[in-house]
Amino acid sequence: MNIGIIGLGLIGGSLGLDLLAQKQNHYVWGISRHQDTCKQAVLMGAVEAASQDPDMIPYLKQTDLVVICTPIPAILPAIASISPLLSPQAIITDVGSVKSAIVASASQKWARFVGAHPMAGTAFQGITAAERNLFQQRPCVITPFSSPVDTQAVNLEPNSKSNTIDREAVEIVRSLWQSVGAIVHECSPEAHDQAVAWISHLPVMVSASLIAACQQEEDVAIAELAQKLASSGFRDTSRVGGGNPELGRLMAEYNRPALLKSLRAYQNSLQVLIDQVESEQWQGIENVLKITQSDRRSFVDGKG
Amino acid sequence: MNIGIIGLGLIGGSLGLDLLAQKQNHYVWGISRHQDTCKQAVLMGAVEAASQDPDMIPYLKQTDLVVICTPIPAILPAIASISPLLSPQAIITDVGSVKSAIVASASQKWARFVGAHPMAGTAFQGITAAERNLFQQRPCVITPFSSPVDTQAVNLEPNSKSNTIDREAVEIVRSLWQSVGAIVHECSPEAHDQAVAWISHLPVMVSASLIAACQQEEDVAIAELAQKLASSGFRDTSRVGGGNPELGRLMAEYNRPALLKSLRAYQNSLQVLIDQVESEQWQGIENVLKITQSDRRSFVDGKG
Repeated sequence: MNIGIIGLGLIGGSLGLDLLAQKQNHYVWGISRHQDTCKQAVLMGAVEAASQDPDMIPYLKQTDLVVICTPIPAILPAIASISPLLSPQAIITDVGSVKSAIVASASQKWARFVGAHPMAGTAFQGITAAERNLFQQRPCVITPFSSPVDTQAVNLEPNSKSNTIDREAVEIVRSLWQSVGAIVHECSPEAHDQAVAWISHLPVMVSASLIAACQQEEDVAIAELAQKLASSGFRDTSRVGGGNPELGRLMAEYNRPALLKSLRAYQNSLQVLIDQVESEQWQGIENVLKITQSDRRSFVDGKG
Repeated sequence: MNIGIIGLGLIGGSLGLDLLAQKQNHYVWGISRHQDTCKQAVLMGAVEAASQDPDMIPYLKQTDLVVICTPIPAILPAIASISPLLSPQAIITDVGSVKSAIVASASQKWARFVGAHPMAGTAFQGITAAERNLFQQRPCVITPFSSPVDTQAVNLEPNSKSNTIDREAVEIVRSLWQSVGAIVHECSPEAHDQAVAWISHLPVMVSASLIAACQQEEDVAIAELAQKLASSGFRDTSRVGGGNPELGRLMAEYNRPALLKSLRAYQNSLQVLIDQVESEQWQGIENVLKITQSDRRSFVDGKG
């Protein structure tokens, strides 16, 4: 296949490395805003051709699949700029961590658009952080989009709307991610967004609020003591709240409805515990913690 | 010194192992509720004599220092049962993770009582989990207690009340923990309790509420997808909320006022973020997350 990657960072670069390492005779090209990144991507074998300017890419018109690996705000502009140069048969997909806000607009811009979200990463960014096998055994969610009337629906059975879904395009995107080792799930954009709100975006807000709360201690000596005594429990609970502020802002901005639903549910769960502490229902607290101890296993067991 | 350890679990057993490994000619005895634990503790070199019955301990009357390493609810009963058998010169200390609720009562039962809290542990419990060097480079907070009128005060300068504090006893307890490698801090019981509420007890409630919130998703397909997609962010943020339910209950029960203060501050911090998401103040969210990213370093930098 002729595969284009727009945005040569950790995700785009790692995808290119894996694709070119396959014995599939793929032709992989890339576009980046930075000439240095283009050079580096070619040099390390992530792409065979790269440029800031799509017109400089050989065989662009013969592209089968374009994977947009830019940050979320650049996805729709990237589609707008590349689509006039592609054959109408080309498929465009993306790797954005939110889907509803992208997929409806992208599908209007390009009929053969298929939203996707490979959930992989490291603590590092950029083409120099790209690595082989980043997606091995990691989830990748594909979010086929049927028609504008369904944007409010949460439906995990896309077959029921198969008359409006480009199945061929979906299967090609599925094959792409399976070929680099990802475990592919398929659901509606809205189901994806609510699921990641629970397990990815809500934890950021919960964790950041913990750090912010601790900074409210007015007694300087106690505040300093707390910093000295903080250990693994605080370190783990606060980790994602101390992460990239721009990413945190983007997930809130582009996944607002699902995040708000999760935040309100969280407020309710927290209030239950606060009420129990206030009214000294010690056995009740122990019961809640028994359930959370047990329920957590559904989320983390059997994962590395 | 003649040192007694009451409660031969992870903490008591590890302390005994370190003390007997020192070239100090300490005599270390232990008491456990279980005969098997007593045998095991002697066998592994954590104590030289151990029994369920204090009357069976050789040289008990010559004991210089008793370290109570039981769970919190058993600390005061342990003092009541051992104190009639000790010389009035003996010092009693404990290892409980809350201090105000223990120290005032314990000091009334035994004049030479000094509260302490070595902050060390592993994922395992019991004498078989005991290990050498558990306290190396770990904090240990000593909480001298002056007089009943000060129980509501938060004062990090115990020297100002030194007329009522048994400094000799405090220094002996300090030497004990320093001899096994701990980094000793000293503050009032109330300051300790508020500091650990922030960095240890609040995270448990915050983290447990995250797990409980995710279980509120009513759409079974989305709930299952969320479980499949959960990765390191969710795993870390939920870890302490999936911990020992009895420990979580005890920290709430014995540290209620400080925990409630922290929980209310946390609600306020969370509300700031929720308000910003609701009113679409994206730059405001990014600003909050920049501060939490920076502030977190004060708690975790330079620690293993």
